[in-house]
Amino acid sequence: MTTETLKLYHSASSPNSRRVRIFLAEKGVQVTIVAVDLGKGEQHGDAYRAINPRRVVPTLVLEDGTSISEVPAIQRYVEEIHPDAPLFGTTPRDKALITMWERRAEQEGFASVMEAIRNIAPGLKGRAIAGPHDYEQIPALAERSRQRAANFLADLDDRLKESAFVAGERFSVADITALVTIDFAAKAIDLQVPAGLESLKRWYDTVSSRPSAAA
Amino acid sequence: MTTETLKLYHSASSPNSRRVRIFLAEKGVQVTIVAVDLGKGEQHGDAYRAINPRRVVPTLVLEDGTSISEVPAIQRYVEEIHPDAPLFGTTPRDKALITMWERRAEQEGFASVMEAIRNIAPGLKGRAIAGPHDYEQIPALAERSRQRAANFLADLDDRLKESAFVAGERFSVADITALVTIDFAAKAIDLQVPAGLESLKRWYDTVSSRPSAAA
Repeated sequence: MTTETLKLYHSASSPNSRRVRIFLAEKGVQVTIVAVDLGKGEQHGDAYRAINPRRVVPTLVLEDGTSISEVPAIQRYVEEIHPDAPLFGTTPRDKALITMWERRAEQEGFASVMEAIRNIAPGLKGRAIAGPHDYEQIPALAERSRQRAANFLADLDDRLKESAFVAGERFSVADITALVTIDFAAKAIDLQVPAGLESLKRWYDTVSSRPSAAA
Repeated sequence: MTTETLKLYHSASSPNSRRVRIFLAEKGVQVTIVAVDLGKGEQHGDAYRAINPRRVVPTLVLEDGTSISEVPAIQRYVEEIHPDAPLFGTTPRDKALITMWERRAEQEGFASVMEAIRNIAPGLKGRAIAGPHDYEQIPALAERSRQRAANFLADLDDRLKESAFVAGERFSVADITALVTIDFAAKAIDLQVPAGLESLKRWYDTVSSRPSAAA
């Protein structure tokens, strides 16, 4: 299914962009893809700031020119216009549970890894938080965040002892966030899934072999 | 409208609980309210841990015993079963924009205030992050978060120069998050809306005079 009138501004290396790309791939939806070169600072240029004044990727631009940023907002829009396959659930109970589990994966996992790398990477000095304001790095925070990310992996293993997927018996957006978090943690802060977390490993092998994982 | 089969575990002083209470009040929905005494550490007791192993408020318990935690997940459930008045929008575009603005208010405003107080309050030593794990406070982070919260107020004023409400021309869940953030910032970290932010003041006076603000 092609929806060329939708434009996704993204970066190939951005984990937030990948969350959206996998979401689209799971639904079989193609949009117009526009790369933003973060290495060259293209997100800080006037052209991109006109699209997203917060200077972050991804941004989804609708046919009428409306810019949608924030990953869950973009995913919500795509779910509304392409309901199949549902990734946020179909009943009120499932929608609530998937929102809850996705959010935990994001707040405890994804955000911790992001905070860990942003507060220590030499290239992000003075830019510890993405967005329009500059903030200094806090190395002690990078350390604490790394510990949080490690705790997230252990907690996720516990969860996956009792559940096939993160939010229940079906693949959902919560699995996308958790998968991207694990790959991002390995690459950005060299945090690997420890040996012994068998349920997490079983789940990871399953979700990372879906075709969407290549997105 | 009464939905007594739904139970909301909350605390009167918890700003996250207030986000849900205002949401319910805007819809005119009454649920069974159960107070959790955070001062006495009731959230760490076995009874509450059986309801929410993460030991945070609020939690919504459904008739079948399902526990929903995380404010946006609870709000999503209530929106699904009581669609009027809609607080997350009605069209795909509005749903996405409201999700985006609510999230910005939460990430930049609410979370910053929470981080500022949790990393400095003497009573939260060793408990800098709510949840099942213990983390040490980082005073430098409290300082940076306070600055972020101040920047949020200035950015929100800019936004409200061009828009009646946070997410557009209608009251939405984004206004609830922003309102709770401002009241919480004043109380918890003595951060007041600076003189001169006229648009923010105009909006604050409007939303805080709605009957739901007393919830």
